[in-house]
Amino acid sequence: MKLTLKDIAQALGISVATVSKALKNYSDVSPATKKIVLDYVEKVKFKPNAQASFLRTQKTKLVGVILPKLNHDFFNEVLEGIVSEAEKNTYQVLVLCSQESYEKEVLQVNELLQRNVDGIFLSISMKTYKYDHLKQVQKQGIPIILFDLIAKSVPSFRVIIYDQKAAFLATEHLIKQGCKNIAHFRGNLIPQMSIDRFIGFKKALEHYKIPFHKEWCLVCEEDRFEKGFENAKKLLKIAPEVDGLFSMTDSTAIGAIHYFKKYGLKVPKDIAVIGFSNWKISALTEPSLSSVEQNGLLMGKKVIEVFTKTQEPRNEEKEEFTTTTIPVQLCIRESSFKIKT
Amino acid sequence: MKLTLKDIAQALGISVATVSKALKNYSDVSPATKKIVLDYVEKVKFKPNAQASFLRTQKTKLVGVILPKLNHDFFNEVLEGIVSEAEKNTYQVLVLCSQESYEKEVLQVNELLQRNVDGIFLSISMKTYKYDHLKQVQKQGIPIILFDLIAKSVPSFRVIIYDQKAAFLATEHLIKQGCKNIAHFRGNLIPQMSIDRFIGFKKALEHYKIPFHKEWCLVCEEDRFEKGFENAKKLLKIAPEVDGLFSMTDSTAIGAIHYFKKYGLKVPKDIAVIGFSNWKISALTEPSLSSVEQNGLLMGKKVIEVFTKTQEPRNEEKEEFTTTTIPVQLCIRESSFKIKT
Repeated sequence: MKLTLKDIAQALGISVATVSKALKNYSDVSPATKKIVLDYVEKVKFKPNAQASFLRTQKTKLVGVILPKLNHDFFNEVLEGIVSEAEKNTYQVLVLCSQESYEKEVLQVNELLQRNVDGIFLSISMKTYKYDHLKQVQKQGIPIILFDLIAKSVPSFRVIIYDQKAAFLATEHLIKQGCKNIAHFRGNLIPQMSIDRFIGFKKALEHYKIPFHKEWCLVCEEDRFEKGFENAKKLLKIAPEVDGLFSMTDSTAIGAIHYFKKYGLKVPKDIAVIGFSNWKISALTEPSLSSVEQNGLLMGKKVIEVFTKTQEPRNEEKEEFTTTTIPVQLCIRESSFKIKT
Repeated sequence: MKLTLKDIAQALGISVATVSKALKNYSDVSPATKKIVLDYVEKVKFKPNAQASFLRTQKTKLVGVILPKLNHDFFNEVLEGIVSEAEKNTYQVLVLCSQESYEKEVLQVNELLQRNVDGIFLSISMKTYKYDHLKQVQKQGIPIILFDLIAKSVPSFRVIIYDQKAAFLATEHLIKQGCKNIAHFRGNLIPQMSIDRFIGFKKALEHYKIPFHKEWCLVCEEDRFEKGFENAKKLLKIAPEVDGLFSMTDSTAIGAIHYFKKYGLKVPKDIAVIGFSNWKISALTEPSLSSVEQNGLLMGKKVIEVFTKTQEPRNEEKEEFTTTTIPVQLCIRESSFKIKT
């Protein structure tokens, strides 16, 4: 007994479209109708076939997302945004993780193409240096949307954070708190995000005529507490006069604060500190950490918004790539707040 | 031009199986061969068809996971374990989030069935009180593996943490540190996890003949910092003599510590505190928080391990459900460490 949507519709005396929508949890079908359909479907053990639907529409209603890391506050927020917004648009999300490997990323893009996904969303790995796999997707007419970590040389849909501006705002905040000797812990030299945050930092110093010291810009090779701690130690040796620090992530900022306190400095009185990403932890440390909110949830939702637009019928042949910028905002807490208003 | 695996195999002079395995990134194909296949596939713009494979094998190589929350340290670790282990076994993972809603969970299970997934992995929502949707999956012969938050009344594959034992160990640790007046912040009354941790707590007190005070067991309706803070305030009003606290999550434990410190108590000297889950944050608070490590990553991997066993050919008709228990361990840090050895 292989039931069809039509059989169910006839049995319940409603339209095929309503049955289909009820099964897909569309919002324009009442909860009561959904219940009737679901109860019936359960009773008759109906198992609709995604493959049949694909043969009809050539759409799988599947999308794939490749994240460089999975166990990571920011990317988890993005994933939450993607999954929740995809569900509203009746898409299902395949989740893959490149673990910062270029080779994995290439294979995973290929796997998603084999799966005939309707779209691919990707934040590129730290190790990705060639982009043929991305161009390949585009050649096959599958929309690819790069988010957060993008490839500047690949024209594509992009959803990004305005890192330069965010870093400018964070540094400006330190200056306005009275800091005159400001250091920066940056990420590795290659990723665009790390470059942009560094440029934003430098621009703010220039703008406010605060001296820039190249040797006070220390690299955290990894986004880890310990790296911030170590760099803080190095920094105080070469520049005990430092009174402000903009660290490129929250965990490195917290590591630095731990060292400053151990060294006998008061935060923010002796040295004001601001991080970047506004992790859950930031509100709970002592002092609580000032940071830049990256709005990962919104980024994820925007990715789906951009994608669903590509699925609408178009008049023109040529695709216009768009860049969506997610607004950032400063979250000022105790670690940088020198001036009481 | 619709190429097949056979065409590619002939063009490269290797077997169809090797081409197929190379595209699926099997480990028994050499990196060199993989590269040859991938380069060729890229050159000829080959796009294999997952649907064709399904028609042949009746397996989609898709699995679905439904999490009650996405932006959550523990579930993210589990997800990481599931995704990484699934990839090794050439499965792709559809990720859905019930957002603790029973209705969503039912619809999502149905959606996964429509997608013809080979298996469903589920941590049930806090609001789930009926289990027909789970039984339905089993009737259709699709393996369902419940993890962490399970339905005790539904026979199924299970991957769980031994919550009672973990809670016993955490409480025992407080007792061994010399605590004699021990309080417990617990979760809501219904979830099994919350009941089990409470039972473990109580058993440890009984075992060591430490008085149990029902009124010192306060409910945190939500797993939030603020709830721990509020309950700490309530607790000190009714029981200023309390010298130990086992709180059912790390965030509530950290909230409690914040209040204790504000109130002028020293942690762990005046009151020793231990949490549960070992969140990233726990190592970075002051004092650093003792906690119970839940091993989410291992749980995720075990889910896939249990699943792949169900996919092996079986001799007998009847399925034997297994329960896999993930080992927990105490992470003792400053917040509970009274006795210097």
